[in-house]
Amino acid sequence: MTSILLHQIWHQGKEQDILIQGNQFASIKESEALENYAGYSPLKVVECKGKAILPAFYNGHTHAAMNLLRGYADDMPLSLWLNEHIWPIEAKMTSEDMYHGVKLAILEMIKTGTVFFNDMYFSWDECMSAVEEMGLRAVVADSFIDHGSESYKDKYIAKCKAQQSKNTDMLRFAVAPHAIYTVGEDMLKRCAEVARESDTFLHIHLAETEQEVKDCLSQHGMTPTEYLHSLGLLGPKTILAHSVWLSQHDMDLLKESASVLVHNPCSNMKLASGIFPSKNLIDNELKVILGTDGVSSNNNLDMREEMKFAALMAKVRYGAEALPADKVLQWATVDAARAFGLNAGEIAEGKLADAIIVDLSNDRLIPNHHLVSNWVYAADSSAIESVLCNGRFLMENHVVPHEDEIKENAMRVAHDLVKRVK
Amino acid sequence: MTSILLHQIWHQGKEQDILIQGNQFASIKESEALENYAGYSPLKVVECKGKAILPAFYNGHTHAAMNLLRGYADDMPLSLWLNEHIWPIEAKMTSEDMYHGVKLAILEMIKTGTVFFNDMYFSWDECMSAVEEMGLRAVVADSFIDHGSESYKDKYIAKCKAQQSKNTDMLRFAVAPHAIYTVGEDMLKRCAEVARESDTFLHIHLAETEQEVKDCLSQHGMTPTEYLHSLGLLGPKTILAHSVWLSQHDMDLLKESASVLVHNPCSNMKLASGIFPSKNLIDNELKVILGTDGVSSNNNLDMREEMKFAALMAKVRYGAEALPADKVLQWATVDAARAFGLNAGEIAEGKLADAIIVDLSNDRLIPNHHLVSNWVYAADSSAIESVLCNGRFLMENHVVPHEDEIKENAMRVAHDLVKRVK
Repeated sequence: MTSILLHQIWHQGKEQDILIQGNQFASIKESEALENYAGYSPLKVVECKGKAILPAFYNGHTHAAMNLLRGYADDMPLSLWLNEHIWPIEAKMTSEDMYHGVKLAILEMIKTGTVFFNDMYFSWDECMSAVEEMGLRAVVADSFIDHGSESYKDKYIAKCKAQQSKNTDMLRFAVAPHAIYTVGEDMLKRCAEVARESDTFLHIHLAETEQEVKDCLSQHGMTPTEYLHSLGLLGPKTILAHSVWLSQHDMDLLKESASVLVHNPCSNMKLASGIFPSKNLIDNELKVILGTDGVSSNNNLDMREEMKFAALMAKVRYGAEALPADKVLQWATVDAARAFGLNAGEIAEGKLADAIIVDLSNDRLIPNHHLVSNWVYAADSSAIESVLCNGRFLMENHVVPHEDEIKENAMRVAHDLVKRVK
Repeated sequence: MTSILLHQIWHQGKEQDILIQGNQFASIKESEALENYAGYSPLKVVECKGKAILPAFYNGHTHAAMNLLRGYADDMPLSLWLNEHIWPIEAKMTSEDMYHGVKLAILEMIKTGTVFFNDMYFSWDECMSAVEEMGLRAVVADSFIDHGSESYKDKYIAKCKAQQSKNTDMLRFAVAPHAIYTVGEDMLKRCAEVARESDTFLHIHLAETEQEVKDCLSQHGMTPTEYLHSLGLLGPKTILAHSVWLSQHDMDLLKESASVLVHNPCSNMKLASGIFPSKNLIDNELKVILGTDGVSSNNNLDMREEMKFAALMAKVRYGAEALPADKVLQWATVDAARAFGLNAGEIAEGKLADAIIVDLSNDRLIPNHHLVSNWVYAADSSAIESVLCNGRFLMENHVVPHEDEIKENAMRVAHDLVKRVK
């Protein structure tokens, strides 16, 4: 087993040596001369003077294949955007399209330091192939939308059960009823049951817009969160995307059930869904993580940028001290890794060896008064030199294997797709 | 005179040839074979297949030397931030510090596609040297803060008058009373007079916080905008940074006087100053441009990121169709160039040859359904390959001359500065 030594890397305010063995950080200590590592053979030595290590990102909510739709429709209200643009083009997407869209998404994630994503789309199998080829971690799910067909429902539940046997350390499968307004009560319950039986994640959009809350109150006499609770969908393996519109009672239910809320600031702002109540959620000690949503409502998968949006949005709503840099970095890293059961998200001995290596001589990281502040508020992807996942380099010195091929394929299928819609 | 040919560059949806002669775009037309350009000699040919040209950025409000304070103090209320952190360290800054801080700022601007900045700080001479060395455009001003000394006031006014003789096409000088709460009535009037006499710009912070409006109402019985109007400070060469808190009457005065408002979304959000009323300003047909403010309240000078913040902030406040990508790009480019009297900010024949060249094979610009949408919402600086200003390359193929030296000097003086405060 080859070990990797990150020699003289900046970590916690000083130069250290970080030894990776297998898929873990084996030791982190004061930097030593290379000859002291003679016992580790084979050893890949990476000279890291002038570089710093930071935790990698875990993206809590994505629709990866939508990378094909980047910039296809913007600057319009949600209903027009969905009905006239997104749904018609999605109806024309083939499996091949989705596969290449996911590959482009993963390429973008790797280049921006993300090693895990929690995906919901119509591309379960394509996502699985792309993830395995590119070496990062994921929880993937087919999004279930209720069209009334009983056989379609049965098929979905059967597939959810069957997929569990294919779970690996890197790739797991979730159950994903799309939302309370696209899935009926019976199927929401069946999804909750199959997720519980399989001890797997349940991924759903919740309380994204004020309209969703109003409609739910008028239809069920409950808020969306209360409605999910009444059907048994809340719990520590339930991942609730958006969660913008919450009452105090909703927050109590979410805390009791230890459910996970995914904050998607760019998407919520761009679609004018509302302002996530970040301070209330912190005060109520809820489990919050960060996600980008799909690129057609963002329009990228850059978790660094997402951190800045989350923090600045919190500040303009609650005051300049709200959601400081350290806290939002936790949401994007260790808190998210924990939510998905990964012993990762921190640079510490015994943790899974996922990390970003940044170049401290990047102009946006100068001066280095406070690395985390620079990372959250000032940097961009140009500072990211290498990305490690599970003890392997996904990107080394800016190189991701097969990048050109991935981009050419995505470009080709995206442009053919648009032609088929017109 | 060497001409530059940007051969086969993507512009307005197709491959074109752009010929630059002197400091202007001389011709823009369908791409031709290179031999057709034999008459232009000497000719520097830049092969641009797979690249696109975009207008460069004009940053409406900066404090460039503050780049030394990046990440020095964050996540705290404005008064604590200013009184306990920023002002004490500013008091220790030397001219040498400021010179190296401005150089770092200009390096960051060039790498993010900015070719002009409108600066206000205590570093007039240092800014002048740095701008001339690095080849971009600027309007620079010393920030005047009233300490009550008459001789200090006289000296400031005399310096403002004297500097006008040093104006060049690239570098001009402005008068910059800091704000209505740091400069007395008599000096505000004198600043307006000297700006009028010299036909130069007047740069001031206005209505940044709600508190400023409340204090002004109680002290003068007028809003800050009305107060400036009463003292004769409004006009087409008056540049008003922030302008967050405005009444309808304020907007009427600003329109009548053709004053220029600078929107600083990141700073306003990070310091919790408030939400800029972008839709009202557009509806009232006011002149709005974009700026980053200094890095200690941002914490970078990246106008691409600033555009995304401006657009998404407008959308979450006013609806998803507010401030579309094309409009915010205008604020950051052609509208800003016009506000500063530059025949620039557009890629068109006869305009000053300022531009950004981006790599269309950057993963964040794929697919290319809508280049402006990708640029505003999806890209980052990693897509920027070259930057042109006044017909010269400030950055060519990612290389800015003397980059390492600029960064090393800034790092050194910033760390020494911090030691002197502790």
